[in-house]
Amino acid sequence: FPHGHGPEGKAKGAVPIYVHNPHLDALKDDILYHFSLGTGSHNLPAMFGDVKFVCVGGSPWRMKSFTEFIAAELAMEDPKSEYPNICAGTDRYAMYKVGPVLSVSHGMGIPSIAIMLHELIKLLHHAHCTDVTIIRIGTSGGIGLEPGTVVVTKQSVDATFQPKFEQVILGKTVVRSTDLDQSLAQELLQCSKRLNQFETVIGNTMCTLDFYEGQARLDGAFCSYTEADKQEYLLKAKEAEVCNIEMESSVFAAMCKLSGLRAAVVCVTLLDRLKGDQLSSSHEVLNNYQLRPQKLVGSYIKQQLKNINQRSNQ
Amino acid sequence: FPHGHGPEGKAKGAVPIYVHNPHLDALKDDILYHFSLGTGSHNLPAMFGDVKFVCVGGSPWRMKSFTEFIAAELAMEDPKSEYPNICAGTDRYAMYKVGPVLSVSHGMGIPSIAIMLHELIKLLHHAHCTDVTIIRIGTSGGIGLEPGTVVVTKQSVDATFQPKFEQVILGKTVVRSTDLDQSLAQELLQCSKRLNQFETVIGNTMCTLDFYEGQARLDGAFCSYTEADKQEYLLKAKEAEVCNIEMESSVFAAMCKLSGLRAAVVCVTLLDRLKGDQLSSSHEVLNNYQLRPQKLVGSYIKQQLKNINQRSNQ
Repeated sequence: FPHGHGPEGKAKGAVPIYVHNPHLDALKDDILYHFSLGTGSHNLPAMFGDVKFVCVGGSPWRMKSFTEFIAAELAMEDPKSEYPNICAGTDRYAMYKVGPVLSVSHGMGIPSIAIMLHELIKLLHHAHCTDVTIIRIGTSGGIGLEPGTVVVTKQSVDATFQPKFEQVILGKTVVRSTDLDQSLAQELLQCSKRLNQFETVIGNTMCTLDFYEGQARLDGAFCSYTEADKQEYLLKAKEAEVCNIEMESSVFAAMCKLSGLRAAVVCVTLLDRLKGDQLSSSHEVLNNYQLRPQKLVGSYIKQQLKNINQRSNQ
Repeated sequence: FPHGHGPEGKAKGAVPIYVHNPHLDALKDDILYHFSLGTGSHNLPAMFGDVKFVCVGGSPWRMKSFTEFIAAELAMEDPKSEYPNICAGTDRYAMYKVGPVLSVSHGMGIPSIAIMLHELIKLLHHAHCTDVTIIRIGTSGGIGLEPGTVVVTKQSVDATFQPKFEQVILGKTVVRSTDLDQSLAQELLQCSKRLNQFETVIGNTMCTLDFYEGQARLDGAFCSYTEADKQEYLLKAKEAEVCNIEMESSVFAAMCKLSGLRAAVVCVTLLDRLKGDQLSSSHEVLNNYQLRPQKLVGSYIKQQLKNINQRSNQ
């Protein structure tokens, strides 16, 4: 329980957010450009100091709807009220807050989520947040799973099934670990069992730099391989315990680990890639699937906040 | 003049959009999921068959404002009318159209623009478009240039200054050329000279996978190098004729070349990276800079359409 809250309800030392950058102290203001926020223009401790959970996902619409969902779930605010986009000064990301829960969109792909995470980690640091849990709620392609199955990531692996993320710094490649918090993954799995509304599994998640050729799809603008090549590659992934494929988990895991954030990745599978490539299910079905990670994580956060409140009332 | 229109106004054979995927013919419908469009649900030739210019940029707001700007510039529609977002069914990308000009957002980073380009190339192919010119209008960090300078890309290079893009396919790396159309780059430079409103140069553009560590910034959440290391790296880039740094040009160049699209990258520099990292200029100044690629490309398109009309009237 690295973040100070064991199941017995004993709060240990509060865990801060670590930045690893000696140059930050020398900045008079720190402008979080892609959030349209900054230390000079905003009182970040007042705005964000109480944040304990951060949920991130690709789509700004989904993160807004998650905010409305969690507000109702926690009965903390009027679920019919409007939640302002805290990053309304930019169209790069959207950000919403309900009580201790922050909800942020990150766009698609490793570079897009990495920009967001650099600025989010600095934001949480400047706001003096402690004991923060961060969960990516996303969509993915499944391998050999019934569509709609939710996957909690054990390890994020690259396109050669290795649990690593390669960060290029000054033109040189630095390898970073993609370890996620295993106790958090287990807690989420248990939570889904209690919820009992859909299938949830723990498995590896492959993180690619591309949606079409990078994921062995046959329906991109370019495709130089056969259906048999595709099946062979996906079955090799399955042998490496890959349950699903998406495009952000590796850098998410690497950066959260570096900054001391307790992190998990919870993605629903929209299709079984062994059976096809196109997202041809109806919008209604796909929308229903996309709600599942929200429901699971919403239920988890509700339970955790109840535990924290019980501890403070003892 | 690979796309059939020489300066003498002689139309040669029309150049189609090439997809390189034998599997596409076998699809009954082709769902362009991230556009919320498809061959089964939309009449793509009727909607897009007349497209001759595609402008792409990271920010959906900027691409909407470009649409309003180009409509006024071409005097083709009431500049005060509202242009509907053609991709209103999704929040992944935004798309607008005025006459033969399509304007599409692509988010931040190589994976995000690659998804958009796969679906855009298929869209143009399904719509039977010919002789299409595509221009990325973006923002970037400059190296040794006055902020506000516009850079037309000669070659897109990677973080080691090589003109290549590495595409991972079935777990193996395939190297692709990042050549752009040199005659188009020269035409854009000449156009900017006629316009005479801001400085424009031709030079190499470095395309990175990350905004902070990947671009040697000192203001990210993590930084393991010194100011001297940063300066050394950026000066090496300058020696390799790198004028600016952004995050999409390499895969843009590679994919456009493969599909026969005449392509250029036109980015304004928002700051001089030799002098700093933070985007601390006022919003007014930055917004003014961001208009410059729009003005240049708008002026170019206006001139080209005039040439085409003159030819058809002869």
